[in-house]
Amino acid sequence: MNLNKNAVKIAEKMLERQEEFKIKFIELDNGTKIIDCGVEVKGSLEAGRLFAQACMGGLARLKFSIKNFGDFSLPSIEVATDFPALACVASQKAAWSIKAENFSALGSGPARILAKIPEKIGYSEKAKEALIALEAGKYPDEKICGSIAKECGINPKNLYVLVARTASIAGSVQVSARAIETALYKLDCLGYDVNAIESAFGSAPVAPVIDNDAKMMGITNDMIIYGSKVFLYTKERIDAAKLPSSTSPAYGKPFSEIFREANYDFYKINPAIFAPAEVYVNNTKAGRINPEMIRKSLSLVFK
Amino acid sequence: MNLNKNAVKIAEKMLERQEEFKIKFIELDNGTKIIDCGVEVKGSLEAGRLFAQACMGGLARLKFSIKNFGDFSLPSIEVATDFPALACVASQKAAWSIKAENFSALGSGPARILAKIPEKIGYSEKAKEALIALEAGKYPDEKICGSIAKECGINPKNLYVLVARTASIAGSVQVSARAIETALYKLDCLGYDVNAIESAFGSAPVAPVIDNDAKMMGITNDMIIYGSKVFLYTKERIDAAKLPSSTSPAYGKPFSEIFREANYDFYKINPAIFAPAEVYVNNTKAGRINPEMIRKSLSLVFK
Amino acid sequence: MNLNKNAVKIAEKMLERQEEFKIKFIELDNGTKIIDCGVEVKGSLEAGRLFAQACMGGLARLKFSIKNFGDFSLPSIEVATDFPALACVASQKAAWSIKAENFSALGSGPARILAKIPEKIGYSEKAKEALIALEAGKYPDEKICGSIAKECGINPKNLYVLVARTASIAGSVQVSARAIETALYKLDCLGYDVNAIESAFGSAPVAPVIDNDAKMMGITNDMIIYGSKVFLYTKERIDAAKLPSSTSPAYGKPFSEIFREANYDFYKINPAIFAPAEVYVNNTKAGRINPEMIRKSLSLVFK
Repeated sequence: MNLNKNAVKIAEKMLERQEEFKIKFIELDNGTKIIDCGVEVKGSLEAGRLFAQACMGGLARLKFSIKNFGDFSLPSIEVATDFPALACVASQKAAWSIKAENFSALGSGPARILAKIPEKIGYSEKAKEALIALEAGKYPDEKICGSIAKECGINPKNLYVLVARTASIAGSVQVSARAIETALYKLDCLGYDVNAIESAFGSAPVAPVIDNDAKMMGITNDMIIYGSKVFLYTKERIDAAKLPSSTSPAYGKPFSEIFREANYDFYKINPAIFAPAEVYVNNTKAGRINPEMIRKSLSLVFK
Repeated sequence: MNLNKNAVKIAEKMLERQEEFKIKFIELDNGTKIIDCGVEVKGSLEAGRLFAQACMGGLARLKFSIKNFGDFSLPSIEVATDFPALACVASQKAAWSIKAENFSALGSGPARILAKIPEKIGYSEKAKEALIALEAGKYPDEKICGSIAKECGINPKNLYVLVARTASIAGSVQVSARAIETALYKLDCLGYDVNAIESAFGSAPVAPVIDNDAKMMGITNDMIIYGSKVFLYTKERIDAAKLPSSTSPAYGKPFSEIFREANYDFYKINPAIFAPAEVYVNNTKAGRINPEMIRKSLSLVFK
Repeated sequence: MNLNKNAVKIAEKMLERQEEFKIKFIELDNGTKIIDCGVEVKGSLEAGRLFAQACMGGLARLKFSIKNFGDFSLPSIEVATDFPALACVASQKAAWSIKAENFSALGSGPARILAKIPEKIGYSEKAKEALIALEAGKYPDEKICGSIAKECGINPKNLYVLVARTASIAGSVQVSARAIETALYKLDCLGYDVNAIESAFGSAPVAPVIDNDAKMMGITNDMIIYGSKVFLYTKERIDAAKLPSSTSPAYGKPFSEIFREANYDFYKINPAIFAPAEVYVNNTKAGRINPEMIRKSLSLVFK
């Protein structure tokens, strides 16, 4: 089992069907393989689904399904994994900050494992190829990719980069695919051992796309905060009540407002808000889906 | 990307598993390949699912899922596509009228593209093989197939014909798979550009089968008119309120009654009825699922 | 079409991905292939899904989906089949009692067909390989496997044995995958011909795992009795009202209590309880999902 190999296999599958997924392949001079899933191209639901699956090192099964939220419905993405810690914490977590002149993005995906971006879960793997996923409005250049490859200990030509801007359908899908990840982040913050979660399910609605990255950041976060459900199967005693987004004092406002009130500084936001709306630990439910806030969030953007 | 090639690939996959899909292969003397999915054979849910997928040129993902309608539930088929105009309007739309002595059927599927059955969406493709899907109670003969092949500009031996009668499980599934198509039909009637829809989801319940084509026509249409939901992701401004079936004065009666009142003449039916029950344009909802009418429609037939 | 060949193909696919499915392969000295899906290993949701699919001779499609039960939700497994009698009665039914010194298990899977474990559905097949699925807390030994192989008329080295204990995630999934089977069992008990069911859907919630086989037996049965839905598509007249679990005088108590009251003797339990909570024959509904009992059952175990 190798998350980078799994992810690269998914990327190769995407490359075989570029037209069908409305994506584009760009090979940099150093050989790095960029797969544009939503920067200069439109991208697609299916590109978003595979983006998210690659981002989880292939250790999850994802599918779309229409879900009811009261008398309102929304297409949602459902995620199931038997390796929540590996797929979500070691790989999917957007914890690799990529910064360069004129470029800034948060990186996720199994390349993080090779670069040993610190995690407490105690997993390592070797691979000659790596995959990183970027939420960004433009492509990283050779220099940036070279530096990523170097941190992974691989040749730049063996680096696969998935990239989609926030305001793209793949970008929207890949955020909504992060419901389980936020639950594990919260567990981790609370001092629980995320390795104790044996299997997990998550779902969140997929926000429609508006051509504005800032607004999309708001509504995609609201899909998680007010619209997601997560189920954790574990033999540990975990207090579900501490997990949902409603434990945060910031709860109850659209994310765009929370962000504005924090003067657009992520680190000033109360981190408890980054959590699923509704969490189940085995049979214990905490929090609840908030259909009113989902509708409010979307109606602020789509007028 | 080639819808006919995609569809033929699906048909070939079906042929490899005829017994499992309860279907039958018949090769005509001119080489045309008939795949009976529900005329002389029983067919199956899975044959219906693949029938519908081939009918959409492979550019859709379809799956069954049990859905709640109030305190009633029904197995439903969910359709997701990143090419709504191509998959539904250019291909799936049953707009090719096939008429011959003793034979009459509406044709759908990507063969329509080769035959240039007029559409406004501006797509064309070349293919040596073509697939047409027929809702019919018997097989088309060599002469009919020869003429279809001719209009497609292909050799009759490269023509694949999927056929299922209305009163078959595959026939039932493939109608319920048309929810998005009806929404795009409505958009087109209203003068919108269907190419503006970037991705779409649809779902509709799958009616159980009764051995009577006329009655099945009634209830399968009711599954769309009163039981379907469609989600359109678009950057255009589209007035959702104009789209659902409830905009039609015929709304509120079982389709069998609407058809009778039109003296069994399709062209006398107010066309606004051919639409989903519930339509979302991005976040805006119009219409609503009507569980009472679904139950009424089914109970008229299954006594 | 061959259920044993289908099942062995699924087993071989599982063997290729042991680490990913958290399963283990053990080859006995006589060559019998044991696939541990949850005895000495943890197993996984996906192992459970494939366990169940193999158990149904490959003639079903299974997927996980989060379902609402009132204001409570639970991950559920949905099963669809176009061969309900073959998949569920001839193959999935756990009607092969395997007993030996220090070993006792109920066997299911297509091996039952080769061993001609009596069924009324009139199906037989020939195969050189066979698959049996066991709900058991330890592995069967060479002697037991030799005797199973002999009854199947095959070489022991061609016998595949899937095994999972009740208190494992795969064990939990494979019980919840039996909703349709219980409906057909009930039909059979009532004297109906199960071959009259042409297609079927079923779903049931998947119980979280507690490390106690007796408790797991209780809650997994409750998932079926109080949480499952089954849809039967048939042209026969069948009285739906006779089918749901609520027709049993034992209805209304957690299964653990029913079992205790029967002095832990399965044969003293009123068999009408082994049935889906909610059954649809075409459009006719009988019984109802009982969210209160699902919650009660789980809360008795997970304190």
